[in-house]
Amino acid sequence: MRTALVIGTGLIGTSAALALAGRGVTVHLADHDPEQARTAAALGAGTDEAPEGPVDLAIVAVPPAHVAATLADAMHRGVARGYLDVASVKGGPRRDLEALGLDPSVLSKYIGTHPMSGREKSGPLAATGDLFEGRPWVLTPTRDTDTEVLNLALELVALCRAVPVVMDADAHDRAVALVSHMPHLVSSMVAARLEHAEETAVRLCGQGIRDVTRIAASDPRMWIDILSANPGPVADLLADVAADLDETVQALRALQSSDEAKRREGVTGIEDVLRRGNSGQIRVPGKHGAAPALYESVVVLINDQPGQLARIFADAGMAGVNIEDVRIEHATGQQAGLVELMVEPKAAPVLTAALRERGWAIRQ
Amino acid sequence: MRTALVIGTGLIGTSAALALAGRGVTVHLADHDPEQARTAAALGAGTDEAPEGPVDLAIVAVPPAHVAATLADAMHRGVARGYLDVASVKGGPRRDLEALGLDPSVLSKYIGTHPMSGREKSGPLAATGDLFEGRPWVLTPTRDTDTEVLNLALELVALCRAVPVVMDADAHDRAVALVSHMPHLVSSMVAARLEHAEETAVRLCGQGIRDVTRIAASDPRMWIDILSANPGPVADLLADVAADLDETVQALRALQSSDEAKRREGVTGIEDVLRRGNSGQIRVPGKHGAAPALYESVVVLINDQPGQLARIFADAGMAGVNIEDVRIEHATGQQAGLVELMVEPKAAPVLTAALRERGWAIRQ
Repeated sequence: MRTALVIGTGLIGTSAALALAGRGVTVHLADHDPEQARTAAALGAGTDEAPEGPVDLAIVAVPPAHVAATLADAMHRGVARGYLDVASVKGGPRRDLEALGLDPSVLSKYIGTHPMSGREKSGPLAATGDLFEGRPWVLTPTRDTDTEVLNLALELVALCRAVPVVMDADAHDRAVALVSHMPHLVSSMVAARLEHAEETAVRLCGQGIRDVTRIAASDPRMWIDILSANPGPVADLLADVAADLDETVQALRALQSSDEAKRREGVTGIEDVLRRGNSGQIRVPGKHGAAPALYESVVVLINDQPGQLARIFADAGMAGVNIEDVRIEHATGQQAGLVELMVEPKAAPVLTAALRERGWAIRQ
Repeated sequence: MRTALVIGTGLIGTSAALALAGRGVTVHLADHDPEQARTAAALGAGTDEAPEGPVDLAIVAVPPAHVAATLADAMHRGVARGYLDVASVKGGPRRDLEALGLDPSVLSKYIGTHPMSGREKSGPLAATGDLFEGRPWVLTPTRDTDTEVLNLALELVALCRAVPVVMDADAHDRAVALVSHMPHLVSSMVAARLEHAEETAVRLCGQGIRDVTRIAASDPRMWIDILSANPGPVADLLADVAADLDETVQALRALQSSDEAKRREGVTGIEDVLRRGNSGQIRVPGKHGAAPALYESVVVLINDQPGQLARIFADAGMAGVNIEDVRIEHATGQQAGLVELMVEPKAAPVLTAALRERGWAIRQ
């Protein structure tokens, strides 16, 4: 790939442009708002001048509802040898495009893609060339997709240092509904319960609810765009959760029964949902996206002095232990906290001993 | 307080014993399983020999369903001047105790308490004297509670370096249902959806679902005990979530309508739940339990070389910036990652400049 045209210089478009421009591709930038394109150009993402002839790859980075029209227009103008989009849903845009009645030989120049980048912020100013680094980038070719276009897409993914994952478009939409869209809505619903809660209750919040509600802080407008393009699969999954919820409410009510058999039913019902939660949670990938994280925790007590974190990591490094993950749990109302260091199981005793020797208080 | 008796040497009992013993209190340990008490004693939590006369404070640290019987037995034997329990629900145990028909002058020696300690592990071996450090410790005195007993409880909380919070017992149960029990069940239900999911879908998991499902990894038996003692408030809250869920499913189905007015209704419905989620999430306390966390993120790209984290923190320290929180986002399939450093807003540009100068790649 030597030349590219990015149509839509928001977060994703500008980030892809930055990655490509940084690796020697000549990138042209376009946006329905010329100011956005100028901003992206100023950031080093390319030039906002139109290309003189067809480019190798056109990247359409507009909201899902506008993808088909934007693609069709670009294809009619023959701006590129290959075309792709990067919207977070794939089935709808493709069906919209097919409905426009383009010639199959033209349609074969298009491939739907979706970089799983997970950023809450938006706009070109939040863009960065390493946004996609190490993350999955889904490609949804059909049997009619030109091999040349598939290869252009693979090259884009490689230049962005992402990991290509080929999927069926509708399977992709069900997958992101499952791992991203449904959890987002459920997190919002849990957080919504705090909206009018008493301060004394809110004070008792711990790390658990903090984790569950973290993503409820995201921008509603972006999520309305996403959910509007994938309502079916998300609704189906929420309905599954609702069924579980109803059963759990029944089980909890049964726990209050004076009938012992009913109470035992309640216990069984609660135990069932908790164990299924265990089984599901263990499947969430950890580092490197391979096996789930099976690390040991070494928990260190720190006070709020600056430099404590640096010293812990330096001491861990001297012990030859690699820290796989870290979580900080804050103490309420006091200048103290706990740092949870996740390490490979066999490294845990080594790290514990080393840190203790350096004077750190370790929780066993 | 000079002497204490801990009845029930699990995680909470042994941790409280360790804190007291470490601060000069003579602690006697008892458990229905003498082996557990011996283990706790071996850890330095006290002695498993019975006290010769009444102690100052008896701490009953048994599952909620056994609290009343254990307390009544201890009170009949007159083992202490004051009695408290540490179960994670307060209304039920108190009502159970009152139903046993004890003399009011005896009942007034009892105060219900609950240390909010948040540990998934259980048993004496997981105990630590700093378990309660900086965390809220709820006290639920009634108007009949002896002042002397309230003061013993306050002294216990202070010796454990926790923060006392006085609440009505039933208000406490509704509060923990809200901030702990309901989120736990909902997290399990989200995680349960992954149990039979295809590997290609699971591969696309990002930090969002990882956060939402983290607590679904906890031990079911402990949670069955807790939920069995607080089923009413939890069921009520889950019913509220279920109502929101049903409305959200309706809104999503409306988004698929061919009728534009219906689609607009759908958008409004989704927007409503997302905004309420924003409002609720912002109430979750951050560090020091005071204002919610309003930190800026500085995101640094790292590779998997050992010592990178140590160098980042050392460089931050040299720039005079205190790191408030840190999150590591792992890259799938590659030896790379992103470290998100949370700092006070005014420190963010300082940190960014300092780290860039030291050669770190920073995301804007």
